[in-house]
Amino acid sequence: MEGNSTLQLRIFDLNCWAIRYLSKRRQERVRLIGDMLCREHFDLVLLQEVWSEWDYSGLNAKLGGCYPFSHYFRSGVIGSGLCVFSRFPILDTLLYQYSLNGYPYMLQHGDWFCGKSVGLIIIKISGIVFNVYVTHLHAEYCREKDAYLPHRLVQAWELAQFIRHTSKAADVVLLGGDLNMHPEDVGIRLLRGWTGLRDAFTEAACFEGCEDGCTLIPNNCFTIKAELMPFPLGIRIDYILYKAISSFTVRCEELKTTMGRAPGMDIPFSDHEAVMATLHIQRQGQAAGVPVGMAEPMLVDVVTEARMEVGVGLRAAQQQRYSMGRLAILALLLLLLQAVAALGTLTGLGVGQPFPKLTFSLLAFLAIGVLLLATGLHLFHTIEVKMLQGTEEQMRMVLRVLQEHP
Amino acid sequence: MEGNSTLQLRIFDLNCWAIRYLSKRRQERVRLIGDMLCREHFDLVLLQEVWSEWDYSGLNAKLGGCYPFSHYFRSGVIGSGLCVFSRFPILDTLLYQYSLNGYPYMLQHGDWFCGKSVGLIIIKISGIVFNVYVTHLHAEYCREKDAYLPHRLVQAWELAQFIRHTSKAADVVLLGGDLNMHPEDVGIRLLRGWTGLRDAFTEAACFEGCEDGCTLIPNNCFTIKAELMPFPLGIRIDYILYKAISSFTVRCEELKTTMGRAPGMDIPFSDHEAVMATLHIQRQGQAAGVPVGMAEPMLVDVVTEARMEVGVGLRAAQQQRYSMGRLAILALLLLLLQAVAALGTLTGLGVGQPFPKLTFSLLAFLAIGVLLLATGLHLFHTIEVKMLQGTEEQMRMVLRVLQEHP
Repeated sequence: MEGNSTLQLRIFDLNCWAIRYLSKRRQERVRLIGDMLCREHFDLVLLQEVWSEWDYSGLNAKLGGCYPFSHYFRSGVIGSGLCVFSRFPILDTLLYQYSLNGYPYMLQHGDWFCGKSVGLIIIKISGIVFNVYVTHLHAEYCREKDAYLPHRLVQAWELAQFIRHTSKAADVVLLGGDLNMHPEDVGIRLLRGWTGLRDAFTEAACFEGCEDGCTLIPNNCFTIKAELMPFPLGIRIDYILYKAISSFTVRCEELKTTMGRAPGMDIPFSDHEAVMATLHIQRQGQAAGVPVGMAEPMLVDVVTEARMEVGVGLRAAQQQRYSMGRLAILALLLLLLQAVAALGTLTGLGVGQPFPKLTFSLLAFLAIGVLLLATGLHLFHTIEVKMLQGTEEQMRMVLRVLQEHP
Repeated sequence: MEGNSTLQLRIFDLNCWAIRYLSKRRQERVRLIGDMLCREHFDLVLLQEVWSEWDYSGLNAKLGGCYPFSHYFRSGVIGSGLCVFSRFPILDTLLYQYSLNGYPYMLQHGDWFCGKSVGLIIIKISGIVFNVYVTHLHAEYCREKDAYLPHRLVQAWELAQFIRHTSKAADVVLLGGDLNMHPEDVGIRLLRGWTGLRDAFTEAACFEGCEDGCTLIPNNCFTIKAELMPFPLGIRIDYILYKAISSFTVRCEELKTTMGRAPGMDIPFSDHEAVMATLHIQRQGQAAGVPVGMAEPMLVDVVTEARMEVGVGLRAAQQQRYSMGRLAILALLLLLLQAVAALGTLTGLGVGQPFPKLTFSLLAFLAIGVLLLATGLHLFHTIEVKMLQGTEEQMRMVLRVLQEHP
């Protein structure tokens, strides 16, 4: 791209809901996604919830012709679920795993096992350096009493910090993913305010798709209708965000979403709608400078609000750590008591064992089990406390810097 | 700093060996370190193994006058042990926790619990942006049969990638820390080659300290003499590395180490020697460009060598994952067998239980214990396999890019 010519970039983003053995009609849907991507010739495809490397390999084999470059981000027990297909060579990659991501004992939610992360790929098109980020934040299971809000806020903060620190040499920054936050939520405001990223939906010159740009809609046969009851139109939690850093401008010419069904089919690609953006990137006569995300007093307000929520999470985590520590000590005491009783019986000094042998052994095993479990959870919540404290402190430092050096 | 004037920067780096309840004469040594730092007025102090926040708070209170800015990096159960004291305002921070860091069941080594990380602080002195990194990699417990080499290599790779991706807007990059690698080790060559960082010891115009710049020496009363037997002079594993990125040059005017004793005292500051560098930073007439770390064919060789070592670790991890999976299945089978026997006895259909009740219950508890433990370890090694595969793939991509676009 020389002079004032414009580069057009077509981006596809989708949470694929491809959980092996659990997601309905997974293989059929992954096949449909692959077929459509082959037909549509996007420039960049950002996918989430491709949990199985088998699905990724299948897509990779099918898409090799149209998207010769791809990357799968590995992390956690199951994987990060994140992958990218690109028409342009991927020059470098980096993965940042969020420090908090739910609880291992919340098996029914399972986020902890996924190693939720943000993946970065660097590509260069016509001499323009693109930092492309793909991510998936912790799900929201109950909006009224959202126990995971502090974790999701830590993730949004780490995402913003990771983007800020790694994108300084980029010309254009793109972020696509399932952020599991509504557009007005504090986490989105924090992310956008602190990075300066703009929302393709609000910026688009032309929009075609679900009302309000929703990406989780009652009209999709795979969504859980009860969860969407308070939101008759659905919710918007999947985003394409962007900004130009150096002497470039980015405009979103067109944004589209699927509308509850794969085009011409009776089933959707996923329980989420796909988001498709057409961006126009143009070189400016002079450096545009780093775009400011938000007026500074507003940014101070958002960081303060986020910090308060992290503080709430911190106190809850401290309480949990304390409870688990106390439980571990009680189990240890019980074990010691049993050891003393057993020793008394063995040496013939005591009054004899008050329980039959079987009950005594079962009790000892129970105590050992509780001791191990409570100690493990105590350690887990200790890490949680540390990371929440660390985030709170980083936010405090940012507030200080914002106020001292506006 | 205007025109051709030179900025002088004095940096102090030390692994403080301050493990609560375990490190000898800890409080006395931390006090000594604090006193010396107050006297010496360095510009930047990079500390590792300050495991206790209590020690950090003590240092912070003492050093507040000479080093008004500081940061403690929190991570893992115990903490990262990393902290920084600075004469100049810290504008921003970021922590990257290494994806692999030993094994939770190697309690005697304990690295896993520390959440080993690299911390980044950003400071600005006379308009020059400094990205300052502090880190501590996994320890080496047996050089002949180093089971942790693949993990340390993954850490060295992640460290190099983190520095490369986050330092693009910096004028000067500094890294201090205990890298737990000898100067000629593949991990150090990889780190230096891939980032272009230069070693203050080899570059110093003037050196004063232990022979060969060693930082773990037999002459220090806290080092384990048997471990240093093959190295009569000691080993060099603590480093200060640096590079200038934009239109600046950095020279190391002087490098010093302590020599087994705190100046004027009968005990050393730590079991490691401190490293002290005096750097001169000068603005160039024109942009110096990004320094190349290593001639490209050499870099290809180093990345290939590192990738082979990661491959060795990968195969070991796969073997471990398989063994643990098999053990878990055996325990599950035993439990099922017991359940069938118990059911047979209860319904009166079976031939009766072959064991007395107590032995039967103990066996069931044992099987449950083995099942839980083996499943946990299987999941752990699954994560290990994923991260080793991810690193190997990143290295393969870098090799491809290096060979295609030299």
